[in-house]
Amino acid sequence: MKATHHAFHLAARAHQPENTVIDLGPVRVGGKDLLIIAGPCAVETEEQIRTLAKNANRAGAHVLRGGLFKPRTSPYSFQGLGMEGLDMFVDAARTNNLLTITEVLDPAHLETLHDRIDLFQVGSRNMQNFPLLRQLGKLDKPILLKRGLSATIEELLSAAEYILLEGNANVILCERGIRTFQNDLRFTPDISAIPLIHRISHLPVILDPSHSVGDRETVLPIARAAVAAGADGIMVEFHPHPDEALSDGSQSLDPAAFMQLVKDIRVVARAVGRRVAG
Amino acid sequence: MKATHHAFHLAARAHQPENTVIDLGPVRVGGKDLLIIAGPCAVETEEQIRTLAKNANRAGAHVLRGGLFKPRTSPYSFQGLGMEGLDMFVDAARTNNLLTITEVLDPAHLETLHDRIDLFQVGSRNMQNFPLLRQLGKLDKPILLKRGLSATIEELLSAAEYILLEGNANVILCERGIRTFQNDLRFTPDISAIPLIHRISHLPVILDPSHSVGDRETVLPIARAAVAAGADGIMVEFHPHPDEALSDGSQSLDPAAFMQLVKDIRVVARAVGRRVAG
Amino acid sequence: MKATHHAFHLAARAHQPENTVIDLGPVRVGGKDLLIIAGPCAVETEEQIRTLAKNANRAGAHVLRGGLFKPRTSPYSFQGLGMEGLDMFVDAARTNNLLTITEVLDPAHLETLHDRIDLFQVGSRNMQNFPLLRQLGKLDKPILLKRGLSATIEELLSAAEYILLEGNANVILCERGIRTFQNDLRFTPDISAIPLIHRISHLPVILDPSHSVGDRETVLPIARAAVAAGADGIMVEFHPHPDEALSDGSQSLDPAAFMQLVKDIRVVARAVGRRVAG
Amino acid sequence: MKATHHAFHLAARAHQPENTVIDLGPVRVGGKDLLIIAGPCAVETEEQIRTLAKNANRAGAHVLRGGLFKPRTSPYSFQGLGMEGLDMFVDAARTNNLLTITEVLDPAHLETLHDRIDLFQVGSRNMQNFPLLRQLGKLDKPILLKRGLSATIEELLSAAEYILLEGNANVILCERGIRTFQNDLRFTPDISAIPLIHRISHLPVILDPSHSVGDRETVLPIARAAVAAGADGIMVEFHPHPDEALSDGSQSLDPAAFMQLVKDIRVVARAVGRRVAG
Repeated sequence: MKATHHAFHLAARAHQPENTVIDLGPVRVGGKDLLIIAGPCAVETEEQIRTLAKNANRAGAHVLRGGLFKPRTSPYSFQGLGMEGLDMFVDAARTNNLLTITEVLDPAHLETLHDRIDLFQVGSRNMQNFPLLRQLGKLDKPILLKRGLSATIEELLSAAEYILLEGNANVILCERGIRTFQNDLRFTPDISAIPLIHRISHLPVILDPSHSVGDRETVLPIARAAVAAGADGIMVEFHPHPDEALSDGSQSLDPAAFMQLVKDIRVVARAVGRRVAG
Repeated sequence: MKATHHAFHLAARAHQPENTVIDLGPVRVGGKDLLIIAGPCAVETEEQIRTLAKNANRAGAHVLRGGLFKPRTSPYSFQGLGMEGLDMFVDAARTNNLLTITEVLDPAHLETLHDRIDLFQVGSRNMQNFPLLRQLGKLDKPILLKRGLSATIEELLSAAEYILLEGNANVILCERGIRTFQNDLRFTPDISAIPLIHRISHLPVILDPSHSVGDRETVLPIARAAVAAGADGIMVEFHPHPDEALSDGSQSLDPAAFMQLVKDIRVVARAVGRRVAG
Repeated sequence: MKATHHAFHLAARAHQPENTVIDLGPVRVGGKDLLIIAGPCAVETEEQIRTLAKNANRAGAHVLRGGLFKPRTSPYSFQGLGMEGLDMFVDAARTNNLLTITEVLDPAHLETLHDRIDLFQVGSRNMQNFPLLRQLGKLDKPILLKRGLSATIEELLSAAEYILLEGNANVILCERGIRTFQNDLRFTPDISAIPLIHRISHLPVILDPSHSVGDRETVLPIARAAVAAGADGIMVEFHPHPDEALSDGSQSLDPAAFMQLVKDIRVVARAVGRRVAG
Repeated sequence: MKATHHAFHLAARAHQPENTVIDLGPVRVGGKDLLIIAGPCAVETEEQIRTLAKNANRAGAHVLRGGLFKPRTSPYSFQGLGMEGLDMFVDAARTNNLLTITEVLDPAHLETLHDRIDLFQVGSRNMQNFPLLRQLGKLDKPILLKRGLSATIEELLSAAEYILLEGNANVILCERGIRTFQNDLRFTPDISAIPLIHRISHLPVILDPSHSVGDRETVLPIARAAVAAGADGIMVEFHPHPDEALSDGSQSLDPAAFMQLVKDIRVVARAVGRRVAG
């Protein structure tokens, strides 16, 4: 990448040499700690989300992820419970000492969600939805910004700039696989994006191994690889009964596999001078 | 592509064997006529848009394209005149017997734009902005839906399905180049998408050669290629003084080159049994 | 592409402003004429190749293509008849006034093939097989150099440079589809490569629509598109009974479809100031 | 990937459930040990290769890599010393207790090289050079087969099958970056290929981080990531004075950085139950 970027400025390490560190309470993202976000693709039932939250907390996760509004390729796929799932999602998290993150598709939902949700996620389809980014830039909550399927690093950091420019400095970037010719896995996790982003930006960056590969068995080695490459955390899908999930079951870990993943990550984290808090 | 698609249904040729034909008055899109849309990347000044509209009409264009709200990778790039450009844009078109098309980024703008604009464009960054697609599905105006940079044909047709499902049957698809390893040109125009879409869908499909290649000199041969492959039209950028354009000047044609392009297209159209009306 | 290329020199239009024109007798490649090469993926039987040659000549082809040694992804796929197919291939062509082209995998075969074959083809897997390119550079026969699946234009022209540098000026380039995320068709035909190559090199460039798309129905529109974009010819697979072909049957035209293709190409060629000789 | 593969059989884990382990003496590749190959892109001078060999051995490398015949995109780039470099290369390695590996471009070189070289490398440009693969299948030396820039895993394993089928069971696969739209780094290292290959094949797989990223600073994190993902080793470029290297200097480590890399890898290896022998 060229030495100077006219496309972004606030997001550049040249502008701010020290890492942005976002204090979430149990974990300081961008510091020594690794952030662990876990949860189902979509909130489905009270029982599902409660079981997950309990397991997530036990395994060592810090944030419960739960899709309320799901952006789906086809209008005929399950679109999420919407606001009906909000209470059960937040209650399950609170009861188990977990923070909450959910994806926002529509700025109109922010008013209702704002007081209940701790972090907001921008999905890869919306990475360049600039009106949405600007709205999120006005909030006082951290934003997890996922890289688009074919976004360059410059485009990702420029999208972050739209948020930063409105005054919200708490942006966490998320690599989630890029679209390449390779079609054995759903996408190609771009592990090289992690050190590259760290070099040119001060923002923390985590990896979503579940969407990157779309395949349960490959999630663990890719999560370990991301941590070894310097990722500031992991966002992973799990489900009490992955094969019954209403969406993305094939890439979801069951609770035992998720326990194993956190265990693996703890060991690799130590090897590279990081740690999993809690 | 697999014979059956669960992702879309209304957009499939299996559902509607005959072509969707959209009657715009001077041109019936999806029939024998080719649709020619031309105009600047962004509406800049009254003089610029008036000169363009006059030249566009003379050369044989049917629709004047003009960006009011420009989605730009960087927040520091020119973002368009916004609603301030609306009157000059519409007046320039009306005076020169041209229909109008502009890109919508935000459903909140639709109320103001609705009565002034003839066709609405969804840009490639918003191809999967589902709340926006649903809003556009409720309108009685034709929608030009641009393919995302790395969208598959199934994803494009599924995005169209979101519009169709709300009741708006007048969707025109637009190929605008895909992101590949090739980096001599800005994108790789996927000419093969044109016959492929025609085979599996009844919706018309046009090509935007300007954004596909990002390079003035390659626009003409690619426009001819698209027509030879069966495209239902062309959307092309031009500018009275391309080198002074506030955005995308390097890919804009000057009025003389645009005249040549329409002339070339007329001849190729005849060779494949189509015609440029007017 | 950068203005100066250190990677190639003889292949550059800056070095030789006028087109390289290769006189094959019935057709001058790189001039006004379009070159039509047709034939089966592999020579299979005497009857097959004779029937094809007769049909190819009738339809207007100039060169008979026939694979003797087939490079196949798997060692368990049909590898071609080898030298056993040579006589039947050459006889079929001669009897029908066609020139011959075959792919060379191994420089060791050149001695036997040299006096019988009119043009030699380098397949995309061997585009950067430099010892092979150097051998072919010493011959007095035209070389058809196919672009690698993920080769840039600079890499293709640099590969041509290896041939030119040994003294053989008669190189014809061939676009045959690039590997992208798109997987509805086998590859993505890069039509934009045609005008791009013409701008920076004086060498003729043709398109292989059959391998580009791997799908019979899409071959015709893509062949027309290539001619409209300025291609100097077409290489197309056909077979008397495509569904019984030992390799690549799904992309082969039957004789009637091939007749239609040449007819279509004649019309488009005229529209862009070219012609199909014969 | 589909459950059954007709393209390869001997290379499949379904055919041989236990890992292939290749005993190189100091290290058993495919077992618990990690293989470390290091050396310059090209052998340049006696002093260069001797210094490197001494440093490589000290840092913990097992095999000295040295290009004699370099496949270069442009015929005007340095093509390697050829056979003139052989003695200095082999002597430097032997003196420092290192095994030797070099790339073969031409089967004609094998006779001279066979008794001096311990492992033969097939470069990514030659992954589907089937006559070369068949020749190497007849040798009694291990073969390092590099993945092509845009080769699928099926194509890589099918290429390995050509070697295995001739009787040589000692094939080591090597991921070296794939070509994608991402152009901040030279290629995109496909870390996900490592667990995927391990699942469907019994052959060992290593990573070349230097060619994958083409950028010194990113080599270390990517090497650590590969080991965390389960790679059986690393092949890395280093040079006593990277900025004076005749080829690929920008991606070469200097001796101190290489020491650090091996140190890092030792720690990550332990975290995932592997070790660096020696």
